[in-house]
Amino acid sequence: MTKPTLTAIAREANVAVSTVSKVLNGHTDVSAATRRTIEQLLAERGYQRPRAARPAGRRTDLVDLVINELDSVWGLSILTGVEEVVEEAGLSLVVSSVHNRQSATRRWFESLLARGSLGAILVLSELTERQRDDLARRRMPFVVVDGVSQPPPEVPSIGATNFAGGYAATEHLLALGHRRIAAIGGPEQLQCTRARIAGYRAALETAGVPADRQLVRFGPFQHEGGLAAAQSLLALPSPPTAIFAGSDQQATGVYEAVRRAGMTIPGNISVVGFDGLPFAEWTAPPLTTVRQPLHEMGVAAARTLLRLVNGERLESTRIELATALVVRESTAAL
Amino acid sequence: MTKPTLTAIAREANVAVSTVSKVLNGHTDVSAATRRTIEQLLAERGYQRPRAARPAGRRTDLVDLVINELDSVWGLSILTGVEEVVEEAGLSLVVSSVHNRQSATRRWFESLLARGSLGAILVLSELTERQRDDLARRRMPFVVVDGVSQPPPEVPSIGATNFAGGYAATEHLLALGHRRIAAIGGPEQLQCTRARIAGYRAALETAGVPADRQLVRFGPFQHEGGLAAAQSLLALPSPPTAIFAGSDQQATGVYEAVRRAGMTIPGNISVVGFDGLPFAEWTAPPLTTVRQPLHEMGVAAARTLLRLVNGERLESTRIELATALVVRESTAAL
Repeated sequence: MTKPTLTAIAREANVAVSTVSKVLNGHTDVSAATRRTIEQLLAERGYQRPRAARPAGRRTDLVDLVINELDSVWGLSILTGVEEVVEEAGLSLVVSSVHNRQSATRRWFESLLARGSLGAILVLSELTERQRDDLARRRMPFVVVDGVSQPPPEVPSIGATNFAGGYAATEHLLALGHRRIAAIGGPEQLQCTRARIAGYRAALETAGVPADRQLVRFGPFQHEGGLAAAQSLLALPSPPTAIFAGSDQQATGVYEAVRRAGMTIPGNISVVGFDGLPFAEWTAPPLTTVRQPLHEMGVAAARTLLRLVNGERLESTRIELATALVVRESTAAL
Repeated sequence: MTKPTLTAIAREANVAVSTVSKVLNGHTDVSAATRRTIEQLLAERGYQRPRAARPAGRRTDLVDLVINELDSVWGLSILTGVEEVVEEAGLSLVVSSVHNRQSATRRWFESLLARGSLGAILVLSELTERQRDDLARRRMPFVVVDGVSQPPPEVPSIGATNFAGGYAATEHLLALGHRRIAAIGGPEQLQCTRARIAGYRAALETAGVPADRQLVRFGPFQHEGGLAAAQSLLALPSPPTAIFAGSDQQATGVYEAVRRAGMTIPGNISVVGFDGLPFAEWTAPPLTTVRQPLHEMGVAAARTLLRLVNGERLESTRIELATALVVRESTAAL
């Protein structure tokens, strides 16, 4: 018996090839009866998905994802995008987190080489030049998502339009009449932080509002980072009337600082977040934020990696997906 | 040169063995200078973590985690617990999601066998009896977290005290004077759903409040599940005055239904969630919820799996970690 193609399965089930493909990929717009028929045929005929071509000498079906911290919805959204594509390609995903630790990165890197992974996706973490060279020598492709520093031009990378996001958030606050606008970034060395703060500064400049260095803070992306930065901002002799946070989780820290100071949002302070995570719709008040297409960034990273694994050339090594301002109830006119 | 032990490294660094262990495991309560000294010694002396013993014929350093849906903070919390232990053991973690699809589970299962994983952790997903037999024949251990159905006694499983959690949530609402108390479960067939609803019923019974079948609903754990169930509950001729949701995400759906109905929480309706995810502290109003120790459940699952990989015997195949009621502002006296 020859291996059946999608076309053969579709003919036998008397449906379009696209319907078979939908069932394979778990789309829900196929009737239960049709789905059952097709799933049965796929099983009976022993259909196997085409697999990514494998470089000689590597026999695994593994792709690696390494992420600095796993414990945030932010990373999870990227992970689900990557997982979707990897699973669709019939491959498996090894997930590691390195917690900003050199030793953990080194250990991960060694195990990556040892297990003969097909390639790696790095999220908010960085390889040394030597590690990059090692990967190149072994022809192991990798893709960077939201890299720590500006990667060299030959390194494929995926990001969001962070500059435009920072610009849009600040422009929104300016349009509401705010002039004392603070910005909290993530860790200062991160490429995404720099781009957002540059967008914030550019918007202030366009509006002719002088930038005040005291109003820019940096800190971890978590709740505690936002709390600490906002507390120190609110303690200034001339505190801000609006705060642009570096993440939705930092924004909940800002919420806590404002509440502890006996003030309200947006009555006393307007707050804008960054990321557009689902929970931001349910905070008190619902959070105005800059949405990043995180799931799609994961999809793009995995697709790019699989193209590299298959030896394809990329038209562009840098892809930036669009951010979008989502206005809710945490921002108001001054 | 013989391989150095932790004790040797500790002696050389003039610190306690526990300090070296802290540095190895990334704990932060070690001074930067001490950390540097120890990290340098570990690198120079070529310290290698003891690895899990491997069954003959399997040479990988892989452990598998399969989870029904990856796209929730719930699953993420379990994942971080598993990852922590797996990384500490010098192993790597393959992560898959199967979206309730038989075909995806089958594909995952085949790749698990093909890649010679050391063992697998299954979260909210289920193997067929035949798949379980296959694993046993290949001596591949597995551990179930929050299984779909009551696993056979010989299958090691980790859960939370769901019955006690459902009881505590309902008791809290009863103490506030509520009598029309609704419960929304996750999917009805799930073991955790059944235990929670049983706890809810037991608390009603203890209080002498007759159970009303109309007040019990089931649905997906996501926001939409809570929204749909709450909308239908609020449309009852005699609607509930309190709703115990099956997850914090369902609770945000209940929030939306209440808001759409022009009512307020807890003014018109009290709401209790389940899970105790970080965002539940920042909802409007902050959510009263039953905390599950999800990260710890992941840790326990991974530790149990590694013991099985090492051929150890378990004292008990079932571990249940305690849930705890966290009272915030979404519940009030009737």
